[in-house]
Amino acid sequence: MTIEEKVAQLVGFWIDQGDDVVAPMAGEMKTSTRFEDAITDGIGHFTRVYGTRPVDPQARAEWLWAEQRRLQTETRLGIPALVHEECLTGLAAWKAATFPTPLAWGAAFDPDAVEEMGRLIGASMRELGIHQGLAPVLDVIRDPRWGRVDECIAEDPYVVGTIATAYVRGLQDEGVHATLKHFVGYSATQAGRNHAPVHAGRREIEDVFLPPFEMAVRDGGVRSVMNSYAEIDGVPVAASREYLTELLRERWGFDGVVVSDYFSVAFLKSMHAVAADLGEAAQIALEAGIDVELPTGDAFLALADRVRDGILSPEVLDLAVTRVLVQKEELGLLDADFSTPPSEVDLDTPAHRALARRLAEEGTVLLTNDGVLPLAPDTRRIAVLGPNADSAEALMGCYSFANHVLAHHPGTEMGFEIPTVLEALRSALPDAEISHAAGCAVEGDDTSGIAEAVDLARAADVAVVVVGDRAGLFGRGTVGEGNDVESLDLPGAQRALVQAVAATGTPVVMVMLTGRPYAIAWAVEGDARPGAVVQAFFPGEEGGTALARILTGAVSPSGRLPVSLPRSAGAQPYSYMHPILSGPSDVTSADSTPVLPFGHGLSYASFRHEDLTADAEVRAGRSFRVAVTVRNDSAVAADDIVQLYGHDLVGSITRPTAQLLAYRRVALQPGQSMRVAFEVPTQRLAFSDRSYTRIVEPGDVDLWVGPSSAVREATARITIVGDVHRVQADDPRVATSVVSSLPRATAVDSDAVAAGSPIPVSVG
Amino acid sequence: MTIEEKVAQLVGFWIDQGDDVVAPMAGEMKTSTRFEDAITDGIGHFTRVYGTRPVDPQARAEWLWAEQRRLQTETRLGIPALVHEECLTGLAAWKAATFPTPLAWGAAFDPDAVEEMGRLIGASMRELGIHQGLAPVLDVIRDPRWGRVDECIAEDPYVVGTIATAYVRGLQDEGVHATLKHFVGYSATQAGRNHAPVHAGRREIEDVFLPPFEMAVRDGGVRSVMNSYAEIDGVPVAASREYLTELLRERWGFDGVVVSDYFSVAFLKSMHAVAADLGEAAQIALEAGIDVELPTGDAFLALADRVRDGILSPEVLDLAVTRVLVQKEELGLLDADFSTPPSEVDLDTPAHRALARRLAEEGTVLLTNDGVLPLAPDTRRIAVLGPNADSAEALMGCYSFANHVLAHHPGTEMGFEIPTVLEALRSALPDAEISHAAGCAVEGDDTSGIAEAVDLARAADVAVVVVGDRAGLFGRGTVGEGNDVESLDLPGAQRALVQAVAATGTPVVMVMLTGRPYAIAWAVEGDARPGAVVQAFFPGEEGGTALARILTGAVSPSGRLPVSLPRSAGAQPYSYMHPILSGPSDVTSADSTPVLPFGHGLSYASFRHEDLTADAEVRAGRSFRVAVTVRNDSAVAADDIVQLYGHDLVGSITRPTAQLLAYRRVALQPGQSMRVAFEVPTQRLAFSDRSYTRIVEPGDVDLWVGPSSAVREATARITIVGDVHRVQADDPRVATSVVSSLPRATAVDSDAVAAGSPIPVSVG
Repeated sequence: MTIEEKVAQLVGFWIDQGDDVVAPMAGEMKTSTRFEDAITDGIGHFTRVYGTRPVDPQARAEWLWAEQRRLQTETRLGIPALVHEECLTGLAAWKAATFPTPLAWGAAFDPDAVEEMGRLIGASMRELGIHQGLAPVLDVIRDPRWGRVDECIAEDPYVVGTIATAYVRGLQDEGVHATLKHFVGYSATQAGRNHAPVHAGRREIEDVFLPPFEMAVRDGGVRSVMNSYAEIDGVPVAASREYLTELLRERWGFDGVVVSDYFSVAFLKSMHAVAADLGEAAQIALEAGIDVELPTGDAFLALADRVRDGILSPEVLDLAVTRVLVQKEELGLLDADFSTPPSEVDLDTPAHRALARRLAEEGTVLLTNDGVLPLAPDTRRIAVLGPNADSAEALMGCYSFANHVLAHHPGTEMGFEIPTVLEALRSALPDAEISHAAGCAVEGDDTSGIAEAVDLARAADVAVVVVGDRAGLFGRGTVGEGNDVESLDLPGAQRALVQAVAATGTPVVMVMLTGRPYAIAWAVEGDARPGAVVQAFFPGEEGGTALARILTGAVSPSGRLPVSLPRSAGAQPYSYMHPILSGPSDVTSADSTPVLPFGHGLSYASFRHEDLTADAEVRAGRSFRVAVTVRNDSAVAADDIVQLYGHDLVGSITRPTAQLLAYRRVALQPGQSMRVAFEVPTQRLAFSDRSYTRIVEPGDVDLWVGPSSAVREATARITIVGDVHRVQADDPRVATSVVSSLPRATAVDSDAVAAGSPIPVSVG
Repeated sequence: MTIEEKVAQLVGFWIDQGDDVVAPMAGEMKTSTRFEDAITDGIGHFTRVYGTRPVDPQARAEWLWAEQRRLQTETRLGIPALVHEECLTGLAAWKAATFPTPLAWGAAFDPDAVEEMGRLIGASMRELGIHQGLAPVLDVIRDPRWGRVDECIAEDPYVVGTIATAYVRGLQDEGVHATLKHFVGYSATQAGRNHAPVHAGRREIEDVFLPPFEMAVRDGGVRSVMNSYAEIDGVPVAASREYLTELLRERWGFDGVVVSDYFSVAFLKSMHAVAADLGEAAQIALEAGIDVELPTGDAFLALADRVRDGILSPEVLDLAVTRVLVQKEELGLLDADFSTPPSEVDLDTPAHRALARRLAEEGTVLLTNDGVLPLAPDTRRIAVLGPNADSAEALMGCYSFANHVLAHHPGTEMGFEIPTVLEALRSALPDAEISHAAGCAVEGDDTSGIAEAVDLARAADVAVVVVGDRAGLFGRGTVGEGNDVESLDLPGAQRALVQAVAATGTPVVMVMLTGRPYAIAWAVEGDARPGAVVQAFFPGEEGGTALARILTGAVSPSGRLPVSLPRSAGAQPYSYMHPILSGPSDVTSADSTPVLPFGHGLSYASFRHEDLTADAEVRAGRSFRVAVTVRNDSAVAADDIVQLYGHDLVGSITRPTAQLLAYRRVALQPGQSMRVAFEVPTQRLAFSDRSYTRIVEPGDVDLWVGPSSAVREATARITIVGDVHRVQADDPRVATSVVSSLPRATAVDSDAVAAGSPIPVSVG
């Protein structure tokens, strides 16, 4: 291979650059290279072939197949391009299914459903000739001011790790490579400002931000990783050999390909100023461990001259090229047949719809309920109000792209159905009189429409007010990439709308379609609060239907908060998994206690958790068994999320006062009780000691199960005994990493288990 | 010495525990040991002899001398106690001078004045038999939500270091040991919550938080250091041998005594949970490097048993005891004569008053002025309004203790004079008609008094509205230790008061007596803003007089903001000394730009900065010369603060976009111009590289002088050439530390310097 042919394999070409490109400062950075010139020596990646704006997938596939044939026949080496696409909430192509936003996956506490979603997404991508998906996002939420919280799963690293790893498994089961984003630290940017510096110590990085990535690498076997834009303690990750090579490859054994987040190599010059020019930026990134520059080769194309000039070692270049070629070989690209493009592509089958609805239902959290929900069967007159009530756009997060673009322009022929909450309620309740007014917009001060909404509420038996965010990019919208905030008040005049409607005395259900948790103490605790508050995040194409089913009681809400509901922006950052002194204390007048805690969520059923048993003693490094009985005390069938928390009472490093150790979604019929058993490795309690070695320390640990992280309904205590256990580096599953072994849970109907008899648990 | 005698030397006894003890959870922690029992084996420290509540210093001195004689004669070893006191804004004793708060020292940019203040404070302490003062505070401000910002100097490490080192020199010149607080990281607590965990990387600690301490240790020769309450990345500083021994003693050569912040040893058990009991907490702290437990021996008294039981090495105990005895020897305590207590003590002489006034004048910042200031000489009717207008308490920060307690109870005979702003204006303008109403309280929603204030404003030629904070501790007051906030709005109804008064159309001067910068964009930029805004922080006992002199034009304001004026709590944390991506950019909708930048401050004079010259090239590790002409273009004599900033354009670690390199307060007569020259070591631009070695890198550096950090009025560029310079560890002054060599500034009347002739500069 010539140097040019090598470099070409390390860069992408952006096929379809439109107004809605998903990258910071994309307009400024794009090159003027013509496509034909760019592929003369071959090309590593085709970037975003299926578009940021609506392009017909079938037609685009035909174009793609032809271009791949051209690469095979008209370039000297004949190597096809690796095609990558965004796919966070579904393949980002027109008419492809739009699943709920990651916060809803977190709320669902259901890795199986997410794995199935990954499989469906992967199958669609494979069908369209896409080899790599730029998902999932494993950034652990620390600050809801950040606009990209929309793309994140949870504030608990274990939830993030288990859910994201399920996504990776699903996607890769279909032969499509997943990409972990954004390695690492991106979610801890200063004051929640996108790309701002990360202030975090090495231990916080090791114990909070890295574990989800480690799980997805070791247990998930992910094939690609994308760097974070962040600079951590002054070092941009794109320039960090410590993270991208020493940790990721040498410590964790990752042998896939590291791709750059869009423009982040060039940002080493323009935004971090650690490189004097693009060539230096490229060399720093390559030497740190970035193999491929995306979306295009703005910086990497300078590598050829640097090799020729003796500035860059050819071995460094060859290593990255080898990785890319190995990846193409793994994907079957080196001997692929592009003679027959796909036909009759269906990216949104009934299976997609069913899973989208399941995840939307499971991922919706009932925050409060005075009994107004579920709506009484005889409810006749319903006012469905709010700017998000009749908006398909409001069901989608900012990484939905083409579908979102269409939904943003009402009246456009979308080519597919996304029922709004209003439409779904009309379908679900054909006999009800359903009125509608937006009342106000998502953004802006205009309150002139509130009067009409109030009139409709007065004339109704119940008012459903659907409020929240409009997802968007870089200044368009209220949440999403680049849309960071200094206030966590609900945007615009929406609080005024809800409060005006509530003041009518008509029972009110407030539905939140948002990309972040908001400071809505007034709605949860206030005097004139709505009768119920439903937090749905962005529930996807079946979100309207799912919400209608929840509101009418066809299904019980079963989501649990994957993030604390904050009291104010001024109390951020915050995490429920904090040491004593992040909580309320006598030494500060500021109380960080959230309005509602991590793990909170109501049901139409009523669950009790009791008889928590655990091994009295466990040797550090081994697993302990925990079992608890969950009882459905109601006449309603529903899912519960059994949440097992722990608190290591004394540690040589300060320990969190609550930490989720295991969880399990269980379905319970009316009156049913079930014994749920977990086998938990003590490594789930490991942490980095003074010398940054991961250890499990002996000592007492409080355990509890309850309706949230903050409520200890059933409790036990175990003692970890023996010597300090150094978590070993050479065992890829149980022993190695804090997080790499999922606690195995087994649910058994307690009727089937005699009291005191051994609980059958599967040992992982 | 017996083990008990040794341990006794490592603990304090708190003589005077009252309601206003300055310690978190003090009530909970205090021991029941009787004084007589506590001193049987001798005692290390007497804690806060001169009281948190008003006790007569003369009488207390007589008691102290008697008790010291008792220790000399009735204990086996005859070693007197070391007496320590708080002294942040002056000795914390009744009738002692109360100087301005540290934020005002920062605003004054005048180390000489602060050194003189330290000398006056030290002399008073020595007179009263006090050996050690628990000041100054060197915590670099990062987040104004934190209540203890009140006690801090600035958000710039160099300003903190130079001012605090001046304080140390002054105090220690009088034979009183200074104590650096709080070593280290305390000001970076999560969300500004007191004692909350610190999220900071090692480099940020090294390059931002440590430099002021290093300067005070190496250049200031400080004799004592107090640990911070903070836990940094999971490790409480009180348990950190890395900070307290390896860094402080082994790297910096500190050979004094480390004292614990009050109760912080016990907190290792109760608040950090890194120790199972007090004995373990004591051992962890002692082994980490804490020599003395303050305020009492709650935990350390358990050390005796641990030595006897073989858990603790006697050598560790002996090392701390030796340090304490060496300190007592240095202080002359081992052969002190306590036969004659002082008489006729005067802690508030005319010299104290003069310096207090100078610092108050120099530390007051004029934020905006449309011409209403200085008040026209013919102003007849003045309405002096606001809750802080006639409050002596409002002039004092939360570490003023006894004086503050008295001022808090109007009508109490204070025994000394603290003229309020109202009283001082009446004295300064005996012929004016001055009316007064508070309008509202500092705290609370009550707006019923605003109408009266508005009436007075209507009837006046000008209204002076004095608003701000009430300093206090742990929930009492709006700022101060334990009074952290989630909002940076001006407390209570004060904004409504100012805006109602401004709406009258009468010209308004808003005076801020606050312990933190507030989010007052409405007053600085708003439509109905006051004609002038004066930020005075807590200006001390002569603050009323100083403000009257400034308002009437007797003296020009000359303070500059030592902290950025924030836009909102939701934009915190923030520092002006940030890399590109903490500033505004296209990748975030959140703009962190403060309302007014670090270094901003207006004058009644008008200054121009021009003809900035600098060496074109300088070798890394050497110093470069910079000179600038400052010109007073007005008819008013005034001081200017010449501020030299730099920006290292490209670095291997991201560099701040602005960094104060040197400063100098200069006095200029009307029409006068002056050439100010600095000799700046390149080490001022050093930073910790990838391996945490402090280096100076070659490359271009932009320099500028201007009216604030944000305005480049006169500019130059220098190039650092040669090899990367590793800052050496064995040179205690110039070569060692980034900060240890103060740039030397020489001011020369430019009339005396022919254009182009060499500028005489003193080389440090």
